[in-house]
Parts: sequence; structure tokens; C-alpha cells
Amino acid sequence: MPDTDVAALLPRLVAALPDGVVTTDPDVVEPYRWDWSHDVAAGTPLAVVRAQDAEQVQVAVRWAAEHGVPVVPRGAGSGLSGGSSAVDGGIVLSLERMRAIEIDTECRVAVVEPGALNVEVKTAAAEHGLWYPPDPSSYEICSIGGNVATNAGGLCCVKYGVTTDYVLGLDVVLADGRLVTLGGKRVKDVAGLSLLKLFVGSEGTLGVVTRAVLRLVPAQAARSTLVASFATVAGAATAVVAVGRTMRPSMMELMDQASINAVEDYKPMGLDRTAGALLVAQSDAPGVARAQEVEGMRAACEAAGAEVFVTDDPDEGELFVAARRMAFPAIQARGAVLLEDVGVPIPLLPELLARVAAIAAEHDVEIPVVAHAGDGNTHPIIVYTPEAEDRARAAFHAVMAAAIALGGTITGEHGVGRAKAAALPDQLGADVMELNRRVKAALDPRGILNPGALGL
Amino acid sequence: MPDTDVAALLPRLVAALPDGVVTTDPDVVEPYRWDWSHDVAAGTPLAVVRAQDAEQVQVAVRWAAEHGVPVVPRGAGSGLSGGSSAVDGGIVLSLERMRAIEIDTECRVAVVEPGALNVEVKTAAAEHGLWYPPDPSSYEICSIGGNVATNAGGLCCVKYGVTTDYVLGLDVVLADGRLVTLGGKRVKDVAGLSLLKLFVGSEGTLGVVTRAVLRLVPAQAARSTLVASFATVAGAATAVVAVGRTMRPSMMELMDQASINAVEDYKPMGLDRTAGALLVAQSDAPGVARAQEVEGMRAACEAAGAEVFVTDDPDEGELFVAARRMAFPAIQARGAVLLEDVGVPIPLLPELLARVAAIAAEHDVEIPVVAHAGDGNTHPIIVYTPEAEDRARAAFHAVMAAAIALGGTITGEHGVGRAKAAALPDQLGADVMELNRRVKAALDPRGILNPGALGL
Ligand SMILES: Cc1cc2nc3c(=O)[nH]c(=O)nc-3n(C[C@H](O)[C@H](O)[C@H](O)COP(=O)(O)OP(=O)(O)OC[C@H]3O[C@@H](n4cnc5c(N)ncnc54)[C@H](O)[C@@H]3O)c2cc1C
Ligand SMILES: Cc1cc2nc3c(=O)[nH]c(=O)nc-3n(C[C@H](O)[C@H](O)[C@H](O)COP(=O)(O)OP(=O)(O)OC[C@H]3O[C@@H](n4cnc5c(N)ncnc54)[C@H](O)[C@@H]3O)c2cc1C
Repeated sequence: MPDTDVAALLPRLVAALPDGVVTTDPDVVEPYRWDWSHDVAAGTPLAVVRAQDAEQVQVAVRWAAEHGVPVVPRGAGSGLSGGSSAVDGGIVLSLERMRAIEIDTECRVAVVEPGALNVEVKTAAAEHGLWYPPDPSSYEICSIGGNVATNAGGLCCVKYGVTTDYVLGLDVVLADGRLVTLGGKRVKDVAGLSLLKLFVGSEGTLGVVTRAVLRLVPAQAARSTLVASFATVAGAATAVVAVGRTMRPSMMELMDQASINAVEDYKPMGLDRTAGALLVAQSDAPGVARAQEVEGMRAACEAAGAEVFVTDDPDEGELFVAARRMAFPAIQARGAVLLEDVGVPIPLLPELLARVAAIAAEHDVEIPVVAHAGDGNTHPIIVYTPEAEDRARAAFHAVMAAAIALGGTITGEHGVGRAKAAALPDQLGADVMELNRRVKAALDPRGILNPGALGL
Repeated sequence: MPDTDVAALLPRLVAALPDGVVTTDPDVVEPYRWDWSHDVAAGTPLAVVRAQDAEQVQVAVRWAAEHGVPVVPRGAGSGLSGGSSAVDGGIVLSLERMRAIEIDTECRVAVVEPGALNVEVKTAAAEHGLWYPPDPSSYEICSIGGNVATNAGGLCCVKYGVTTDYVLGLDVVLADGRLVTLGGKRVKDVAGLSLLKLFVGSEGTLGVVTRAVLRLVPAQAARSTLVASFATVAGAATAVVAVGRTMRPSMMELMDQASINAVEDYKPMGLDRTAGALLVAQSDAPGVARAQEVEGMRAACEAAGAEVFVTDDPDEGELFVAARRMAFPAIQARGAVLLEDVGVPIPLLPELLARVAAIAAEHDVEIPVVAHAGDGNTHPIIVYTPEAEDRARAAFHAVMAAAIALGGTITGEHGVGRAKAAALPDQLGADVMELNRRVKAALDPRGILNPGALGL
């Protein structure tokens, strides 16, 4: 519940910032309470602050620090773990208005404000023949600040790595309102502790990112797309493991039958509804290496019983990738969902998927699966009707427990947020949880930044 | 000076560990006082503990924690920044006996004890057609633990990244003797703060690495080597910038005339002593892309006035790379040296090198330069005679100041250690230094781990 004392102090914040930056209008505030996971426990903030520059971020954080007011940093709100769910009596600090992008072709970096969308950075880089690889499925609707804060993954990560691999520098507003600059345009820098890397993936609990220097690479080479249709998920998972042993595809995505059908119901894309699972893979190896890699993948898929289709046409390839990206919204359209993001060492992928199927059966819930399969990172999505909520929650925890039991993780890319905070100690154990808390206390002693996220 | 109270407690540590693990014999201890930088201020430890397993590391750290004894973790002692210089009254905790290496081909990782040499990991991986890319010039004499603790770079980093990009998991003994496991064999994992990445590059100040899970990739493709001979360093630096704009060489090393001649004096390799600078570059792009990339580099070098030689013969190529690797020992053989490791954004490489030359002239000292030029990471090496020590030290600080002024770093890969601790605040500023200290205090409240390194 909003703290009335703090509410009384709000006018000071309003007065300290330009008109329209702070809003308390309930209709405007409402959509800022949730991210895409629609956390039912999301609170109601006192206000939303839509900062226009780093100085305004500092003003807001200083005010919050002075009065002990919780601050939830927020990018585009596409998060899937309740990381930017609002907190009662706190403020939501939205970065959506800070969107400047500058491409430095000489240094081959993008200098980006946090609210810029991933797609906007990609587009700006492409204008100079450069490429910003990280590509969450949500790339058209998520911000760079959110990507940095969650260390977002995506489809090409299997070959090109995740967000942290591209972050050379950050400006961060600390919990007391100071702004620090970490790293910069230099490619290598080991001066001091790796604080830059610590802030990446900290989900708004250690500081507010107000600027990022992102490494760019030359434009991606032409890609071939392979679509393999398997009778079973186990067959597809086996092929993924086989490919992973010797090849480096630039994409290796999996959809199971339920997710294929969810997509076809949502928007017919011509996918084979009878397939037990589809793999959508790409190779961007240069020259003849590409055809060789595609043939290698074809052989691995056929050996696992698949029918394989290959295209060198980028538009045709993109259709299948778009179908894969559509899986989330398509499944969400079916009802209430609980989103998993579990990952395991790649050879254990078949075992993880078998356990997910067993959990679905045991708890009598539907669990379609899509996966960044090449990384061992899967998204079982528990779809449930209101009366099945308890069973769904039990299945949600069982899937995380299965991943942990297989030496895996409860979250490969979406972050812990609030949705997975309860399970975090099961994965990390008491000692590592304590280290997390010590670092949090060192950087945010009053605990005002995104309290509750990560259970911190 | 050794604290006699602590010396009196040493027998307890000796008794708690197997025979031969703890040694106080001055002749045995002596070489453990220094790393390769031969820090004149290195202290004299009470004892050297050569642990055989993680439990013995824990025993030693627990004993040290109980009595407030400084612990200097030590790998192979090839460090160039005094990071493993001994501390008076402390212990040196050597990991050199912990060398097990296990290659998991299914997960494509190496599980490695910290004392294993980089070359041993590379060799073990190669037996399975796999590759561990990070390749410091010292790869035959440096340990994985040291590589992790310094976030070591190397020659192929320009394309393949640095140590942190390959660390999936670590076992770390904390300052109180507890052992924690961070990460593991999964490729993607964002559960909790990025503590794994924080420990990488922490130079023994936050914990002792007792095991690392390292990502491996398929064996590197065949390489072509290009050697370009320039009249001036400026010409070579200009070519590096041009190549960096559009190409992704797998190596881009620079030697200036003084370092070429130092190598030829040390061990004649047939290098052109009259060249103002040499670039040694490689391409490992697959198929025809390789010849294209080499031709692109040739054109860039020729446009900058170079004579270019190209070979596809791996042995012939390796001769030039070996000459480059020999530069450090060759220059060290000339007298006392102060080793720089400064880096700048790549386009500023010519400017940095010009300033280094000006600093050499101004302070009347010889400063040969070798560089991982493609990363903007340079090693000006100040060679001096005893009577020139003051001038050499002044030049040493001037070079770091020049790098900072150009938006660069005082250390791209060797670490701050003790040699560069005084300059660290100039780069980071008071606020970031304070963050470093807060994190240090959070993880090592009594400050027993590698005190003095990084100025912490
Ligand atoms: C359809 C769909 C597909 C998706 N696919 C992927 C995928 O393939 N890979 C993947 O990794 N994710 C995926 N996601 C999840 C989501 O898009 C990512 O987590 C993304 O990085 C969130 O960015 P955002 O700007 O929307 O952040 P938000 O949702 O606004 O916030 C996410 C977290 O970051 C923090 N945060 C945001 N901005 C800042 C800042 N400037 N400073 C400090 N903290 C900040 C918030 O406090 C919160 O903890 C998908 C989501 C959807 C809806
Ligand atoms: C000829 C030569 C060439 C070199 N070229 C390069 C190069 O190209 N790139 C590059 O990056 N470096 C280079 N170096 C520097 C050096 O080899 C690296 O810094 C290497 O990573 C050090 O490893 P080490 O095992 O020798 O560590 P040490 O020198 O023993 O220690 C280095 C630091 O790591 C800490 N440390 C060591 N082991 C552990 C552990 N298990 N747990 C916690 N902390 C630990 C120490 O406390 C110290 O702070 C070169 C050195 C030489 C002599």
C-alpha cells in the first residue's frame, strides 16, 4: 500500500522535474504495473517517472534514496519474469523516453540510451553495414536497457553469445543517485574488478543503466535455413545434441507439437501440425562452408528420423523464424500461462524435455515447449485454466526442480525477477545466495532498487 | 616483516596439511616471492602452501582467516603486474600442483584445476578435435587459474574474445574458507547476480579459484599468415584501423623496430631489422573467405605503404608468431624493464603510439612496443639502466596517463596487480574506486586475500 508520508513528499519530486515527467494519473500508471508475465501480485506505484535524460534519473533516484522509496527501473516492459512489476508505494522509473542511438563506425560501437529498442539499434547499425547480434525473440518490443539488465539471449546466441558479450561500457546511476561510467569504447579493459559485468544481468537491483556502449561486428553473412520435422521431441533433441558436437549453427530453435499448433491456431503459417517437433536451424558460415554445415545438419536430423527442408532464400527462411518467434504470443493467447526458461547442459536436453512431458502428465496441465535448443535453453510454457492454477503452479516448480537436478538453471535468459525468486535458493544454495545479498547490500545498502527482484 | 605471533601459529597449519604441502625453507620460498615483473617491493612470506586439492586450499584459507594472515594466491607466476608478489608475513598459496584436466566432449567443456597450464588445456582439447581459444603469449608457462584471475587476453582475442568469454563455471574458495560453485556446464545461465563474471579478473582479491569449467569450440580452421613491413609505426597503426573497420582477422599483432631488433639480437629469426614496424596478421575464415580476407588485409597494408608477404604454410606462419611471442623475453634480456599494457579505442591506436614515442624522447628512455594491435591493446616496454630509473618511472606513469587521456585503459589484459595500483584511481575515478572497495569489503571483509593488489 502506498505510504502516505511518501505520497506527501511526491510534490517535491514533481517540482524537481520538468512537466510531464512524473505522472500519478491512475489510467496512465496502470500499464506500468506489469511486464509481459502479468504478475498477479504486482503492486501499485505512487507514480511513474518517465525520465528524459540521465540527470532526471539521478534526481528521481536521489529523491527515492532520501525517503527510502522503492524504485523499479523499467525498459519496455516485455520482461517475462515480473522483474519490472511495480511495488506498492514505490515509483516506476521508466527509461522509454531515453532513446538516442549513435553509431561510431570507427570504433565499431553503438552508444545507446537505455530506452532504445533492440530493433532500433540493429537497424541503426545495419545502415553502416554493421550488426548488433543479440536478438531476443522480442527484439521489436524490448529495450537495450532491459536487455542489459537481464543479460538477454536470443536466437543467434548459440553462435554469437549473449548481451554481456557485447557490452563494452555502461553509465549507471547508483542507489544513492551518483552516476558512474564503467568501461568505454576500448575492446579490452581489465582495470579494477569486473563491475561492468556485474551490472549486466543485475535486473535493476544494483543500479539504473542510462547509457550503454555496445560492440558491433560486420554484417552477418548470408544464411541458409533448415527446417526439420520430427515424429517426436526426443528425436529433435537428439539431433540438436549431435549437431552441437561438431557444428556451429547460427540458430537452432525447437518447437514441439503443441506450440506448432498454437501458432497455426493464432496465425496460420503453413507449419506441419502433425509433426512431433520442428527444428529451425540456420548456418551463416561463409562460402562453401555454409552448404557443408547445412548438409552436416541435414545428416544429423535425418539420422534422428527427420524430414528436412532447406532454403537459401532469406525471406522463406525468415517465415519459419517468424513462426518460431510467434510462439509466445500464440501460446499466451490460449489462456493463463506460467513461463519457464530452464536450461541444462546440452547433452541433457532430451532428458529435460522428457521430464517436462512427465510433469505435464503428472500434474494434468498442458506444457507446450519452445527452445533455444542449441544452447540447452528451453521455454516450457504452462497453460492453465483458472481451476487448474494450483496444479499449474506445482508443475512450474517441478520443472525448475528438474532443471536443477540435471545440473541446469531455472533461468537461461529471462532473469529471476519476482516469478522465479522463490526457486533461486534451490539452485544457488545458501552460500551463493548470501554472496548475492552481500553484493546487493554493498551497492544498495538501503535496498531501494527493485526490492523483491531476485529475492533481494 | 613476518609477524612473530603468526609465525608461532604456523605449526598448526603445517600439522593440518599433508607432509610437504607447507614449506618455510628460504631457498624454496625465494622464487615464490616474485612474478615475471620482478617487483622490487615484493615481500617475504612466512610460508608457501602448495595445495594438492580444494580442501587443502580451504584449510589454508581458514587458518589465514582465523589469524588475519594475508594470502597471495599464485598460479604459475608468469604475471606481469606484481599480482602474485608475496606479502611480508603472509602465505603464498600456490595452485601449481592442482592440474587435473577433464574434457567433456558431449558438453564441449574442459573441467580444469587451476594449476593446469593454458597449453595443457589446449593440448587436451585438441586431442578431441576441440579448441580452447584464449592464447596469451605466455600460454606455455601460465596457468588457467592465473588466466581466470587476470581475465587474460592473447593473440586470437581480436576475433575470439578473452578468458571471461570462455568461463562457464568456477569453484571458488572464499575469504572465510567456504567453497562455492558458480555456474556450471550449461551455456546460458542468468540466475542471480553475475558473480561468476565478477570473480573473473579479480586477481586473487575476492577468492581462490580451485576449478574452472571452460567452454570449448570446434578446432580452429586453417590459417593464412600475413606479414607486413612498414617504414613507420604510424603506417602500421593506420593499417590496423583500416582492417578493423570491415574485417575480422584471427590475429593482428604489431612489433616496432626496437622490438624487432631485440628479438633478432636475442635469437635471430630472420626479421627485417630495417622495418619501422611489422604487422603479423592471420585469417582463419573458412574456404574462399580466407583468401578474400587476406587480400583485403594486403590491400589495407599496401595502401598504408607496406611490403606484404603471405603464407598459407602453418609452420612458416608460426615462425613469425613465435618471433612476436619472443618479444617479451627478448626485451627483458636487455635490462630492467617496466611493462605497460595500455589500451585505447582502436582508431586512437596511431595517436597512442605517437604519444609513447614522444614520451620516450621526452624522458630519454628506450620504449620498444609490441601490441595486440587489432584490439587497441599495446605493450610499450620501458627498458632502463639503473641510473635512469627515475626517468623510466616517470615515463611509465606518463604512458598510462596518455592512455587514460585518450579514453583508454592502463591495463588491457595483464591486470592491475601492484605495479599499476597507484594509477588505477586516475582511470576509474573516486566513485568507481569506492565501488571496488565496497565489493571487496563485502566479499573479503578482513582484507586477507591478496592485500595491496588493485590497491584494495
Ligand atoms: C514475445 C517475447 C519473446 C521474448 N523472447 C526473449 C528471448 O528470446 N530472449 C530473451 O532473453 N528474452 C526474451 N523475452 C523477454 C524480454 O523481452 C527480455 O527480458 C528483455 O530483455 C526485456 O527488456 P525490456 O526493455 O522489455 O525490460 P523490462 O521488462 O522493462 O525490464 C526487465 C528487467 O530489467 C530491468 N531494467 C529495465 N531497464 C533497465 C535499466 N535501464 N536499468 C536497470 N534495470 C533495467 C527491470 O527492472 C527488470 O528487472 C521475450 C519476451 C517476449 C514478450
Ligand atoms: C612472456 C610473457 C608473455 C605474456 N603474454 C600475455 C598475453 O599475451 N596476454 C595476457 O593476458 N597475459 C600475458 N602475460 C601475463 C601472464 O602470463 C598472464 O597474466 C597469466 O594469466 C598469469 O597466469 P599465472 O598462472 O602465471 O598467474 P600468476 O602470475 O601466478 O598470478 C597472476 C594473478 O592471478 C592471481 N591468481 C593466480 N592463480 C589464482 C587462482 N587459482 N585463484 C585466484 N587468483 C589466482 C594471482 O594472485 C595474481 O594476482 C605474459 C607473460 C609473459 C611472461
